Amino acid sequence: MKPLVGIIMGSDSDLPVMKEAVKIMEEFGVPYEVTVVSAHRTPQRLYDYAQEAEDKGLEVIIAGAGGAAHLPGMVASITSLPIIGVPVKTSTLSGVDSLYSIVQMPGGVPVATVAINGAKNAGLLAVQILGGVDKELRAKYKEYKADMKEMVEGVANKLESLGTEKYLENKEK
Amino acid sequence: MKPLVGIIMGSDSDLPVMKEAVKIMEEFGVPYEVTVVSAHRTPQRLYDYAQEAEDKGLEVIIAGAGGAAHLPGMVASITSLPIIGVPVKTSTLSGVDSLYSIVQMPGGVPVATVAINGAKNAGLLAVQILGGVDKELRAKYKEYKADMKEMVEGVANKLESLGTEKYLENKEK
Amino acid sequence: MKPLVGIIMGSDSDLPVMKEAVKIMEEFGVPYEVTVVSAHRTPQRLYDYAQEAEDKGLEVIIAGAGGAAHLPGMVASITSLPIIGVPVKTSTLSGVDSLYSIVQMPGGVPVATVAINGAKNAGLLAVQILGGVDKELRAKYKEYKADMKEMVEGVANKLESLGTEKYLENKEK
Amino acid sequence: MKPLVGIIMGSDSDLPVMKEAVKIMEEFGVPYEVTVVSAHRTPQRLYDYAQEAEDKGLEVIIAGAGGAAHLPGMVASITSLPIIGVPVKTSTLSGVDSLYSIVQMPGGVPVATVAINGAKNAGLLAVQILGGVDKELRAKYKEYKADMKEMVEGVANKLESLGTEKYLENKEK
Amino acid sequence: MKPLVGIIMGSDSDLPVMKEAVKIMEEFGVPYEVTVVSAHRTPQRLYDYAQEAEDKGLEVIIAGAGGAAHLPGMVASITSLPIIGVPVKTSTLSGVDSLYSIVQMPGGVPVATVAINGAKNAGLLAVQILGGVDKELRAKYKEYKADMKEMVEGVANKLESLGTEKYLENKEK
Amino acid sequence: MKPLVGIIMGSDSDLPVMKEAVKIMEEFGVPYEVTVVSAHRTPQRLYDYAQEAEDKGLEVIIAGAGGAAHLPGMVASITSLPIIGVPVKTSTLSGVDSLYSIVQMPGGVPVATVAINGAKNAGLLAVQILGGVDKELRAKYKEYKADMKEMVEGVANKLESLGTEKYLENKEK
Amino acid sequence: MKPLVGIIMGSDSDLPVMKEAVKIMEEFGVPYEVTVVSAHRTPQRLYDYAQEAEDKGLEVIIAGAGGAAHLPGMVASITSLPIIGVPVKTSTLSGVDSLYSIVQMPGGVPVATVAINGAKNAGLLAVQILGGVDKELRAKYKEYKADMKEMVEGVANKLESLGTEKYLENKEK
Amino acid sequence: MKPLVGIIMGSDSDLPVMKEAVKIMEEFGVPYEVTVVSAHRTPQRLYDYAQEAEDKGLEVIIAGAGGAAHLPGMVASITSLPIIGVPVKTSTLSGVDSLYSIVQMPGGVPVATVAINGAKNAGLLAVQILGGVDKELRAKYKEYKADMKEMVEGVANKLESLGTEKYLENKEK
Repeated sequence: MKPLVGIIMGSDSDLPVMKEAVKIMEEFGVPYEVTVVSAHRTPQRLYDYAQEAEDKGLEVIIAGAGGAAHLPGMVASITSLPIIGVPVKTSTLSGVDSLYSIVQMPGGVPVATVAINGAKNAGLLAVQILGGVDKELRAKYKEYKADMKEMVEGVANKLESLGTEKYLENKEK
Repeated sequence: MKPLVGIIMGSDSDLPVMKEAVKIMEEFGVPYEVTVVSAHRTPQRLYDYAQEAEDKGLEVIIAGAGGAAHLPGMVASITSLPIIGVPVKTSTLSGVDSLYSIVQMPGGVPVATVAINGAKNAGLLAVQILGGVDKELRAKYKEYKADMKEMVEGVANKLESLGTEKYLENKEK
Repeated sequence: MKPLVGIIMGSDSDLPVMKEAVKIMEEFGVPYEVTVVSAHRTPQRLYDYAQEAEDKGLEVIIAGAGGAAHLPGMVASITSLPIIGVPVKTSTLSGVDSLYSIVQMPGGVPVATVAINGAKNAGLLAVQILGGVDKELRAKYKEYKADMKEMVEGVANKLESLGTEKYLENKEK
Repeated sequence: MKPLVGIIMGSDSDLPVMKEAVKIMEEFGVPYEVTVVSAHRTPQRLYDYAQEAEDKGLEVIIAGAGGAAHLPGMVASITSLPIIGVPVKTSTLSGVDSLYSIVQMPGGVPVATVAINGAKNAGLLAVQILGGVDKELRAKYKEYKADMKEMVEGVANKLESLGTEKYLENKEK
Repeated sequence: MKPLVGIIMGSDSDLPVMKEAVKIMEEFGVPYEVTVVSAHRTPQRLYDYAQEAEDKGLEVIIAGAGGAAHLPGMVASITSLPIIGVPVKTSTLSGVDSLYSIVQMPGGVPVATVAINGAKNAGLLAVQILGGVDKELRAKYKEYKADMKEMVEGVANKLESLGTEKYLENKEK
Repeated sequence: MKPLVGIIMGSDSDLPVMKEAVKIMEEFGVPYEVTVVSAHRTPQRLYDYAQEAEDKGLEVIIAGAGGAAHLPGMVASITSLPIIGVPVKTSTLSGVDSLYSIVQMPGGVPVATVAINGAKNAGLLAVQILGGVDKELRAKYKEYKADMKEMVEGVANKLESLGTEKYLENKEK
Repeated sequence: MKPLVGIIMGSDSDLPVMKEAVKIMEEFGVPYEVTVVSAHRTPQRLYDYAQEAEDKGLEVIIAGAGGAAHLPGMVASITSLPIIGVPVKTSTLSGVDSLYSIVQMPGGVPVATVAINGAKNAGLLAVQILGGVDKELRAKYKEYKADMKEMVEGVANKLESLGTEKYLENKEK
Repeated sequence: MKPLVGIIMGSDSDLPVMKEAVKIMEEFGVPYEVTVVSAHRTPQRLYDYAQEAEDKGLEVIIAGAGGAAHLPGMVASITSLPIIGVPVKTSTLSGVDSLYSIVQMPGGVPVATVAINGAKNAGLLAVQILGGVDKELRAKYKEYKADMKEMVEGVANKLESLGTEKYLENKEK
């Protein structure tokens, strides 16, 4: 099946963060591709990737990067597809640099930014966007939300019945 | 025509910022609605708005708010539609508070965040998302990008031919 | 005994922080309840909890959350009880995101915010507030303050008599 | 009538901010007193004020200060009453210094902190706290919330019927 | 004469800042060119500019941009010439966003970053770099430094002889 | 009379801030000198000034600077006199850059740092330091503190007797 | 011998930081005392300590504290002696809260602030201040500076002769 | 061979960071020297180093420092050579202090600043600058860029063929 979502990142050191987006694709059965595209080390590759994206059938691109994180914004400058940016946490500035580099785009070229290291939500946002066309996918996301709700209620019930101390003891085991 | 995009904000004091999203809707001919929904002053209204959004036919919601900006995230918690959050600049913390309140959502509930005061890009992101269904809209966004490019090239040409000093003099007039 | 203080948090991962508030309730003999209420994963539960709080006999609600921390402010938007917000430290932004999301509430809907991870003080603030009705509780808080004072004086005496080096050696044992 | 709420501030330059708390007292008919107490210029006055507060009949103290804002925390260290701290915006650091100086209190001595320049909410928080004893006051706060809701709905209706452009034109007049 | 220094900026709204670099070029008699190249609105133009730079004879490129400022880093990714980045002050984040977006480049692709709005120093840094080849230029920069020294000494003498009050009065005239 | 305090600053644009230190010298009758010494434009002058300071009879040096504010720390590196650093507010980073550049000195070379734009306190700190030798000066500072106290009490009395509204009206006149 | 320097801190958890100031006192043979004084847990003790300081013969007070660090400023409000403030690093905000709480004092009441965790420099600053009276102490500080210089030169020589790699290998051993 | 690049740092504790610049010199065959020069502990050494640099044949100086990082700026104030500043990460402020102290230089005295801990890029920037004279060096940097590109493409191919999970497993081995 042709991928609908492209997941790219500036370096394979971002993969442990970005794999959360991959997991969401798997969980929701969304066809995707994942690769490394470095804005600074492979600028031509970035151009080519962005320019071919639509023709390849991609509908959404998720781009993660850290530090002076130019990948999401530059992809957005070239393609007309919606771009989701994931600011990756950095060792010196904790990802505030990544966040500002991704979210503060000038008028005309938006990047849909999620939380620092928020690759999971990047995946879910892609699901929501694709849900505009694929109503089954939207229904799946509703189930996903219902499951989250149930899980929280389960936790709440357990905490209420066990009490704080026992709950924490149980959890540590 | 039934609105596809809902533009909401926490207070009418956010309207001078949020009207840029409205303008994009007008420019692209996207049916929209605009209103005030305060997470903190009208929580029930927020719930009702979010819960009815999909049934009303909305496909995307743009929510702007400042300070402890809970509107975008709370709407996202209730509906399954994609939510675009606009952090509005504040007089004390310049909108860093708004940005953190909107972008740092927990796993499971994404908000597509744009720049501080970036309502224009919120509008364009909505256009990009709707472009997944409506290919004409995507084509319009491509024209929009082409126009931006031309405009920048025009500016560049003028600056190159006039030189810095004259260009600035001309502009001030 | 019917609980007077409700202690809620966005996730059970906040419990190691929030248990300090629980301990204060135990120490002061204040009847309380503790549970998980996620603003984003269980918005209806949040509404119900907040709307029933007063009728259940709660007088104060302590709400802890991290990141885009909407729980305290949203509970405050629904109930008229005083809400105490605990910004929980986050791995990326150290809780500055939580702090701004909780403290920067708009005019009309206050949240009494304590320090990042300051759940102990949230408990004590609840004690102080309840002390307005229950003068015995206020007296207990005075004893608590007296005990803190004595403890500090004990430490000071020990440091003064042992000297810096020996005091530190002793402490490490 | 003996004052129940003491409103103090470090300097009369804080009064334009702190008067919002005064207005809330007037609006809710809560007996109050207002004065200047400087932690750094009149430390003995601070001690005396804090030590006499409870005997005078005060139930809540609202303290506003800017910069290295020690007033709220020091008052809290002396009295057992609940203290509400208002971080006042500063010309150099926009009140982040005030906020950190007020909210980051050590375990044992809480200060209920509101937003930067959030004196209005400090007043409302005092009303909420007093509402634990005085149920009429709590009822009044509920009306206040209902009024806010109505006001927002009025604004929303007007914006919906006039549209963005006309609404903004009308407002400017 | 063929330009040795290319001065580019993301938008003509950066020109009032960037013209300080232009002035340095004029003052030192360095042949230069100045134009607008938007990373986000004209990505192909950016590629072309960067790729042709060396062949055109440019030796240094000065690139100014604000917000999510990708221009300097992207030019650096394409050409092998030294790139000087000027973070332009922004209305919301005062240029911290621009600074982080420019200076926090990943290993392999440096951008020589100057102060926020530091276009003058960007010009001087270009002069210093060109001074490696053109020793006359280096000598001119030494004179420039000597002139600065003299100017400061003149100011110091005047202040010492007039005294603080009179000096300030004189200056205001 | 030979000056005991040297007041220096990086540029005469710092004088409107630094004149507050001058005023304190005048008010306390402390002999002083004031001049401009730029760490970056006149490094030799900085060296000479710092090296001759003690022999000239200076006992304290007050150094104000903004941005990458190296003047106080570099003077401290050369002389053994106590150095007081005044971080001057900057247009881009509000003086946080100045503060960090001055206060974060490495072990071995202290700079006594005061608030951003806190030149008045720099003057008073010099008075306190000189008060170790000159007990009359210490006595004068005590009077100064007593006067501040009285002034605050006067303001407090006026506010208490006039009430908030009238006090503010009076002040505006 | 009567102590000339009082070293105080808000809690014994600050001692591992503050002991660096103690070491400097020992190294320079300055008589000192060290104890715990908590602004918030023992406010009366703070008052008494500050008020008796001068009569006891203290000439300088070094006060370390973290978070909402009120100890240095409050001691400065009561005594006329020079106060040196040490902002202690905090687990949530890395000591930025401590720094702002200590350095941003209002006009009239200075605190000589050193770096975050800069207790060593606090000790040296006390030595510099006492050096105004005790010229032998000033001479000792000059020797201390000479020793630092020699130590750095020794390190430099070793690095120059060994080269980077060998130097680092040697150091690890 | 006479060194063309001087690599200096404030302390040998900066060497683990700065050795990345050394490695680049080795890799590109650029003659260099490396030593410790402390702005604050050896100010005269700093002056001498900076003043002799050009006569010794240095063409670029790379200076790394942390905290109140004055070394790069002070060297720049004395010599006319281009100075590259490396802000070293600090334990309290993560290097934001170093960054601001280095990058925010006043007009007239530029420092080419790279990322926090960005010593590798400092080395590459020196290579780029020297490439203006030595075209072979510029050619080598082009090869270096080509190698980076290839390496990224290799990583990308591997990730594409293995898939996320297997790629991560392989890497951990």
